[in-house]
Amino acid sequence: MHELKTRRRVEFADTDMAGMVHFSRFVIFMETAEHEFREAAGFSVDTVVGRRRIGWPRVSVSCDFASPARFGEVLEIHVRLLRKGAKSLTFGFDIHVGTREVCSGKMTSVCCEITTDGQPQAIAIPGEIAERLDVAPE
Amino acid sequence: MHELKTRRRVEFADTDMAGMVHFSRFVIFMETAEHEFREAAGFSVDTVVGRRRIGWPRVSVSCDFASPARFGEVLEIHVRLLRKGAKSLTFGFDIHVGTREVCSGKMTSVCCEITTDGQPQAIAIPGEIAERLDVAPE
Amino acid sequence: MHELKTRRRVEFADTDMAGMVHFSRFVIFMETAEHEFREAAGFSVDTVVGRRRIGWPRVSVSCDFASPARFGEVLEIHVRLLRKGAKSLTFGFDIHVGTREVCSGKMTSVCCEITTDGQPQAIAIPGEIAERLDVAPE
Amino acid sequence: MHELKTRRRVEFADTDMAGMVHFSRFVIFMETAEHEFREAAGFSVDTVVGRRRIGWPRVSVSCDFASPARFGEVLEIHVRLLRKGAKSLTFGFDIHVGTREVCSGKMTSVCCEITTDGQPQAIAIPGEIAERLDVAPE
Repeated sequence: MHELKTRRRVEFADTDMAGMVHFSRFVIFMETAEHEFREAAGFSVDTVVGRRRIGWPRVSVSCDFASPARFGEVLEIHVRLLRKGAKSLTFGFDIHVGTREVCSGKMTSVCCEITTDGQPQAIAIPGEIAERLDVAPE
Repeated sequence: MHELKTRRRVEFADTDMAGMVHFSRFVIFMETAEHEFREAAGFSVDTVVGRRRIGWPRVSVSCDFASPARFGEVLEIHVRLLRKGAKSLTFGFDIHVGTREVCSGKMTSVCCEITTDGQPQAIAIPGEIAERLDVAPE
Repeated sequence: MHELKTRRRVEFADTDMAGMVHFSRFVIFMETAEHEFREAAGFSVDTVVGRRRIGWPRVSVSCDFASPARFGEVLEIHVRLLRKGAKSLTFGFDIHVGTREVCSGKMTSVCCEITTDGQPQAIAIPGEIAERLDVAPE
Repeated sequence: MHELKTRRRVEFADTDMAGMVHFSRFVIFMETAEHEFREAAGFSVDTVVGRRRIGWPRVSVSCDFASPARFGEVLEIHVRLLRKGAKSLTFGFDIHVGTREVCSGKMTSVCCEITTDGQPQAIAIPGEIAERLDVAPE
């Protein structure tokens, strides 16, 4: 699996006093779309593999904004796996309203074992997860 | 003016089920710190200059996460003006808890006139705003 | 029209460090469900009737929490119109995950004309809106 | 201890397209003010007493809105302990901007032991916490 398309509608609470979606909401829209991708690929962001609890803290996020999105508009979100590292995944996102580009972004998260003291420890992506993921073609 | 230091405390609602501040909150912390910088420099994000209403939509945001921040911790936020373009400003941000680095980021916003139909139109930064801003030394 | 059923899935960013949906998110879920009801009844929260721009600021909200909801769970949200006043509407909400009750609440909003200076002024609900709304049977 | 006064400034991300603070933000402002009260009284919402991990899930919230609050305004928040039950606490909140009333509310939370499976179990408020709390005079 290398891509997923999903959609969501802009809610009132997503907007700010400029009358448009607050930019912080887009990174949440991207995160949720990424979670849908992961789930469609057969694993959650909060998984137990063997006896290890696996989590995926984000290490970097970037986002470019092309045009505003407004209350009630339907956002079409395209998620693609851009890079599959030994310990990390980078997803790319494009958000449109119809044919109008709204924003695009990237997010990298690292596969970590969540130990009992809660401190995340980077580990190699378990084979049973990695084998379900393909990098999207350019 | 080229930099500002501020601080804020992590609230319960800033956290997620991983027990740490959700990454989307950091871009809001950065935005609010940038607004404090602007205000200390003598202008708001929502200003009227002459008869023109000026706003500053964001065009790009990026953020790297070094370590988690937790409920109750005090975040020290350092804002610096990295670039002063003809129509845009780029601010840089470093967030620490004590000496521990939590995250760093950049945000670029464009000076726009907000016309009555609400569509932002990029304009040159008014002189009375630009003259109050200096790029931070490296 | 007097009721609507909708559903939404708990997102990662809806949770807090207690591992459950933060209670502030439920009032947003209720608001969004109310907006779906309004739209299904043929009017938006942000309408123009004649030449008047109509908005619906909230005057009261209450919520009781019966059990936690967690990441990935599907919330079933039942919206009912509890009261139709001359100038206000009160909606009731019940949220379940399967047969488990999660929370219930009420929200009252007042029909207001939004004048050019932005100050909301309470007005009688326009007939063309009121006629589409029935109070739900007990 | 029976009351606390605190303040916070309205941030851009607190606002919605109606140009005012979104009502869901007020319950977060109340929660954070309640946490400041608890801390000033010498205990956190996330405490260990003896070997027991104590949490305080909310069971009810209500809020009435008197007037809008806007970007940059300073909210003065008055927290009072309204009721001290065997297992629960009810706090009351009044929020003003200067002399203008913005909103008032109540929130009840129940003292719970958070067991290893994460399910909250209501318990009597530990004596060392209860003894620090007094109900506010009418």
